[in-house]
Amino acid sequence: MNFSSKLLENAVSEMSQLPGIGKRTALRLVLHLLKQPKERTTYLTTALLELKAQVKLCKNCHNISDMDICEICANKNRDAQSICVVEDIRDVMAIESTAQFRGLYHVLGGKISPIDGIGPQNLTIDSLVEKVKQGKVKEIIFALSPTMEGDTTNFYIYKQIENLGITVSTIARGIAVGNELEYADEVTLGRSILNRIPFENSLKSF
Amino acid sequence: MNFSSKLLENAVSEMSQLPGIGKRTALRLVLHLLKQPKERTTYLTTALLELKAQVKLCKNCHNISDMDICEICANKNRDAQSICVVEDIRDVMAIESTAQFRGLYHVLGGKISPIDGIGPQNLTIDSLVEKVKQGKVKEIIFALSPTMEGDTTNFYIYKQIENLGITVSTIARGIAVGNELEYADEVTLGRSILNRIPFENSLKSF
Repeated sequence: MNFSSKLLENAVSEMSQLPGIGKRTALRLVLHLLKQPKERTTYLTTALLELKAQVKLCKNCHNISDMDICEICANKNRDAQSICVVEDIRDVMAIESTAQFRGLYHVLGGKISPIDGIGPQNLTIDSLVEKVKQGKVKEIIFALSPTMEGDTTNFYIYKQIENLGITVSTIARGIAVGNELEYADEVTLGRSILNRIPFENSLKSF
Repeated sequence: MNFSSKLLENAVSEMSQLPGIGKRTALRLVLHLLKQPKERTTYLTTALLELKAQVKLCKNCHNISDMDICEICANKNRDAQSICVVEDIRDVMAIESTAQFRGLYHVLGGKISPIDGIGPQNLTIDSLVEKVKQGKVKEIIFALSPTMEGDTTNFYIYKQIENLGITVSTIARGIAVGNELEYADEVTLGRSILNRIPFENSLKSF
């Protein structure tokens, strides 16, 4: 692209570093900001800089937080003996919005993925194992995405805690509610038959 | 969405003000920036702030520029008597990349669109008419998008310059190169028949 302005070219180039934002989209976003009052740009840049400078990770669960201990970990009404292992804050938000889990979380910060150069040492696995060894935990629930990386990470953690006398479970995999059976892939359908549940259990209201 | 951090919520909210960026996409972008080194965020915010603070509009064609007169207007090799009227810088870039136009541009800054509250006084129409009245121009080429707003704007400008003795033309509308005839809409196809050109002309190589 041939920009008539170095300033514009620079802004578009920086904006297009963001994931999923190509040069054309970046140009559209930057031109939009140019048309808006100056405050719009200041608000955006200030919010980003403040977030980067001031945000903390909860010392207990490693979730993004404004304080040393996040709201969820600080909540005395939650069951601190049940820990749900997730990849990042988006998974915490997704599970929180179901209102079906009253325990605490442990945010790994990713999944083991050699192809992306992410090994166990890049994640918060040691701190999770440490929590279990201290005897504070009764149940670990794996809630990683059911991909190869997710399964690998689950297994890696499981091998380190299997003999510590706690319950280790994983969220159910099966046909999504509302989906047509005929369009389900065979692995999912196969697992959902193997892991069938007593019919009475399925009557529990959500 | 229930964020665990006000800082994060604030950044996501500002990011989602951009056109086409919803809350989920904004969260993905902000989390990406959080994972990157601090410099990434600084580069982006600095580029945006500098652009907003320092960018100028060319005094001649109103295009975005780093200087008072943009590179195109300052180029002595271009034909200053032929002026292509476009909506914004993206159209300038699109036409420049064809390498088929050697005149200057005039950037209107939008199209007349009462529904969006944009009237002729919000555009740079007066300055274009002034240029024509000064007798410096031989041809005006309209290159606005062929929408109702584009046609309205073309007509509004045309009425003000029709008696000033210059050539007024508009870019050709017709079937796009490579398109199937059967999928063309009837208005476009109809116009392309009405405005047919001598076959020899179509043999000119691009």
